[in-house]
Amino acid sequence: MLPHHDGSALYVSDQAPRPGDTVGVRVRVPEVWGAVASVHVRSTPDREPRFHDARLLGAAEGWRWWEAEVEILNPVNGYRFLINRADGGHWWLNAAGVHSFETVDAEDFKLLSHPAPPDWVASTVMYQIFPDRFGRSTAAALREKPTWAVPAAWGDPVAAEQPARSHQFYGGDLDGIVLHLDHLERLGVTLLYLTPVFPAGSSHRYDARSFDVVDPALGGDAALVRLVEAAHERGFKVIGDLTSNHSGNRHEWFRAAHRAPDAVESAFYYWLDDRHEDYASWLDVPSLPKFNWTSIELRRRFIEGPQSVVAKWLRAPYHLDGWRIDVANMTGRLQGEDLNALVRQTIRRTMIAENPDTILLGESTNDASDDFQGDGWHGAMTYTTFTRPVWSWLSKPHSPSTFFGLPYGTIPLTDGRAFVDAHLRFTAGYPWRTRLATMNALDTHDTPRFRTHAIDGGVAVAFGLSATLPGIPVVFAGDEFGLAGDDGEGSRTPMPWDTAGDSEVAATIDLYAALIRLRTAHPALNGGGMRWVHVGADVLVYVRECAEESVLLVAARSACAVTLPLGSVAGEPTRLLGDAAVSVAGGRIRLETDGPSFTAWALPGVSVPDSTPRSSSQPTW
Amino acid sequence: MLPHHDGSALYVSDQAPRPGDTVGVRVRVPEVWGAVASVHVRSTPDREPRFHDARLLGAAEGWRWWEAEVEILNPVNGYRFLINRADGGHWWLNAAGVHSFETVDAEDFKLLSHPAPPDWVASTVMYQIFPDRFGRSTAAALREKPTWAVPAAWGDPVAAEQPARSHQFYGGDLDGIVLHLDHLERLGVTLLYLTPVFPAGSSHRYDARSFDVVDPALGGDAALVRLVEAAHERGFKVIGDLTSNHSGNRHEWFRAAHRAPDAVESAFYYWLDDRHEDYASWLDVPSLPKFNWTSIELRRRFIEGPQSVVAKWLRAPYHLDGWRIDVANMTGRLQGEDLNALVRQTIRRTMIAENPDTILLGESTNDASDDFQGDGWHGAMTYTTFTRPVWSWLSKPHSPSTFFGLPYGTIPLTDGRAFVDAHLRFTAGYPWRTRLATMNALDTHDTPRFRTHAIDGGVAVAFGLSATLPGIPVVFAGDEFGLAGDDGEGSRTPMPWDTAGDSEVAATIDLYAALIRLRTAHPALNGGGMRWVHVGADVLVYVRECAEESVLLVAARSACAVTLPLGSVAGEPTRLLGDAAVSVAGGRIRLETDGPSFTAWALPGVSVPDSTPRSSSQPTW
Repeated sequence: MLPHHDGSALYVSDQAPRPGDTVGVRVRVPEVWGAVASVHVRSTPDREPRFHDARLLGAAEGWRWWEAEVEILNPVNGYRFLINRADGGHWWLNAAGVHSFETVDAEDFKLLSHPAPPDWVASTVMYQIFPDRFGRSTAAALREKPTWAVPAAWGDPVAAEQPARSHQFYGGDLDGIVLHLDHLERLGVTLLYLTPVFPAGSSHRYDARSFDVVDPALGGDAALVRLVEAAHERGFKVIGDLTSNHSGNRHEWFRAAHRAPDAVESAFYYWLDDRHEDYASWLDVPSLPKFNWTSIELRRRFIEGPQSVVAKWLRAPYHLDGWRIDVANMTGRLQGEDLNALVRQTIRRTMIAENPDTILLGESTNDASDDFQGDGWHGAMTYTTFTRPVWSWLSKPHSPSTFFGLPYGTIPLTDGRAFVDAHLRFTAGYPWRTRLATMNALDTHDTPRFRTHAIDGGVAVAFGLSATLPGIPVVFAGDEFGLAGDDGEGSRTPMPWDTAGDSEVAATIDLYAALIRLRTAHPALNGGGMRWVHVGADVLVYVRECAEESVLLVAARSACAVTLPLGSVAGEPTRLLGDAAVSVAGGRIRLETDGPSFTAWALPGVSVPDSTPRSSSQPTW
Repeated sequence: MLPHHDGSALYVSDQAPRPGDTVGVRVRVPEVWGAVASVHVRSTPDREPRFHDARLLGAAEGWRWWEAEVEILNPVNGYRFLINRADGGHWWLNAAGVHSFETVDAEDFKLLSHPAPPDWVASTVMYQIFPDRFGRSTAAALREKPTWAVPAAWGDPVAAEQPARSHQFYGGDLDGIVLHLDHLERLGVTLLYLTPVFPAGSSHRYDARSFDVVDPALGGDAALVRLVEAAHERGFKVIGDLTSNHSGNRHEWFRAAHRAPDAVESAFYYWLDDRHEDYASWLDVPSLPKFNWTSIELRRRFIEGPQSVVAKWLRAPYHLDGWRIDVANMTGRLQGEDLNALVRQTIRRTMIAENPDTILLGESTNDASDDFQGDGWHGAMTYTTFTRPVWSWLSKPHSPSTFFGLPYGTIPLTDGRAFVDAHLRFTAGYPWRTRLATMNALDTHDTPRFRTHAIDGGVAVAFGLSATLPGIPVVFAGDEFGLAGDDGEGSRTPMPWDTAGDSEVAATIDLYAALIRLRTAHPALNGGGMRWVHVGADVLVYVRECAEESVLLVAARSACAVTLPLGSVAGEPTRLLGDAAVSVAGGRIRLETDGPSFTAWALPGVSVPDSTPRSSSQPTW
């Protein structure tokens, strides 16, 4: 048991402070940790450390609670706790945990005065749809196929090799998604994320030819309107996907600019010669010319103001609920130039003006922390914080895999401690708010499917973690059907709707639905505090906590038993889901499981003792 | 023994690459570590990971050497190594060490295409002078005292309390420094750092009244010319001290601006009311109004271009060799505004235009890494990387101290492992170049003196570390006389010149001189590689390495013995300095000491095996 703080409402008085506010922050210190001489909070206004003393609020359930104040003077306000123990030990507590000596500012807890994301973000469950492969309306067959299309029947295998790779056309369309909303409602997801729907030159459509119309092959603009309306009627949010790093080389802007130095659109790209023949492109792929964001006209057309692409699709009649931005990490960055902050801030400002109740996610598949401090992206589509750690904990040994492009040869295996270390290391730089809005994906349209190399029973454990750790749970369409796939292309399998009745598939769908119901039903899982209770090689025990209730979670990758000391969790657990056995005896809780399993129990909420008189200048909780 | 790389010439083919260059990077892997399947280097051009395979160069002295290339595409180019062991283990090596799973980009090794600091920086030894307290010329007594002066005789104790605190005037002057250059030459230092010499309202002069003239009480402009000329004649460099965060409230610019909204200088500061009565100031101290760097005119007068203050004092007849910048961390930062990068980059650009052979140091007393990526400050005056860790390792238990403003109550004590952990944690974010230019100070004019609370024999160990770890060794004037002092003010004791003959003082001066001679005599200590060989609670063993020679160093805080395995260092050690015993037997080296000690031995240089044919496109080493 260690001192604990996180950004949740148990510990922070205001989730959306404004400049000039004072926010109360609380830390709990276990009584078994010994007598505490003093507690201080360090913040760094204008980057200079400042300390405030914390006062003892009282003790309850084996913990002493302390409270102090942090002034919101900058857009990002880092803070950490210093706990001076009576035995002479000095301990720092920051977002990476407890340290016996000073550590770096990047891992401070953080309070932001940037506009907060919508409330619904912390409790949403994402379902990712690759439009060509999800569902096909009857009208689809009648439409003209795109010029790039290599026609495929719904049951055909996905082609791994060029030229068919990325050009197979299964003919899914937006009305085809509407046909399957029942399935999504049964599953319980709340946010549909569509990969690009604009006309392009490939099945993934990340090489857009226009941002102004929906691809006619998907049903066109009207189909998007129908989809979003149908989705909203059932309470789903729907977000789109934009490429801020590049367009396709058949994009109308690029065609106007290529070999035409005098064109208005010439300034939208980076040219490598005077004739504007050669140009900078994404990873030197010529079909993806890179945007030059120094162009004010590009910003005006694409991301800035009510006439921009970003704004248009959030408005009537389309009403998208936000954007996922492709290659956010490289956007605006080329050699000596870095306009990334300008682009992400501009996009979000435009969205707020159009509809602040929208979400903005940025793809940044590796370490993302410094771009994700709340000034633009709400959360990350990244593989560092969750995806790769969970693969490494729950994959079979010696699984050959390109593993997200990292040259390991096989999937690197780690134990539960390394899972938590990696998760903490990569989330420690995030504000709490960013953590809640970051995708906990097992896989996406760009990766192999998790199930491909998972240990038996691993999917339940992995999606259990996805559904209950801070962040947005993600189902990549088809995961709930038990699909496998060995690389990003191979995992873009058309939805095998006709297998839904097979017992194994039905069981997998039920498993996903049960875990999603768990997630959405419990306030503690939607923004509640996050505390590790036991971290072992084969079992992870943690508790999500708020004032109303707590949820105790056990993720085990093999048979194991754990005994928790008195006070790590309070009260008698009531089973919510899963098979692990629990017994309470002698003031200890014993958790036991006979194989890979994910189990959840309800516990009472956390009440914070508060016996200290409060002055009028102190924040309201 | 662990795989090793650092930024030194053994491992990096070019210390000052230009945009578009390709740089060779090498890593050595101990043979005892087992068979290696492959080695890769990861860089992140435009922030997207890219991998290159390394090739095996050959083996020597128990190590296998691998080499790969990194393209210099951005101003800061992070890179790290992935070592796939034949046993299936995957290991990452970055500036923080070896990791069994992925870690954050901030700790990547880094290659910079920003202009490099002058070569002399890596081999300089700094001596810090507080002008009022160093030396007094005969002319000093005849000059008019400043209006703020509370006159003090040279032997008077420093006043801890106001109003005398910070206003005692001992009357040291710049010609007084000239009088003692013999001492500095004997000591062997090479860089004199003068705290401010401009007219001000206090003894520390950080509340400048002008940046255009040297304080007449110090001898005026002519005295600065005499000092720099005399110093240059003996081969010393001399740098000054500027406050880019604030001026004094009696500064000519502030007086023109205060309560005068129409004044040109009005835009130089931050006003809190329309009448320009109240203003933002450093930590709300009214005598230190904060600069507003949005003002182009302020930049022009102070930091930008040949007419600026920054440029003027680098030119004839003054010829300063650089600047230390006060409160660099807060400069240009106020609430929602952050112009820090603009200010530091502008200062350095101005300096380069005037004289590129100059140094720019920024005060950033806490975690400094993200401001120190080579675009402005060459190195940091910070207490995180060395000062506080060395205090915590070598102070007496229960020493009461404000400890740099941190509310510990007493000096927090740690062991040698924590010293190295802290040193690594805070330097891991620095490019190698920044590390070499960062001050390894035991104390400064703003801190207590290290000796005050040091264990017996601790000064030799601590200054031994200062003199031999990567970074600039620092002597705060008076340390070599064994001065003590309990806070920043109390340590500003006038130099006790008349004690130089006392045997204890003479011994301390000799100790400093010997360690400085060690530093300046050995190329390995001036930019050579840095490798920890043994890290224990009470003893640290490390080796600085280059092609010509290596130096083995042992810092012990108590009696202890260490046996190093074969291959951690190569060859037979030859004693350079210190008392620890060394014996070589059975292919092992045993180091033994009977108390606190600092010992150095010479070893052969490191030769890199290179049996791989080299293509013409590969970098030249």
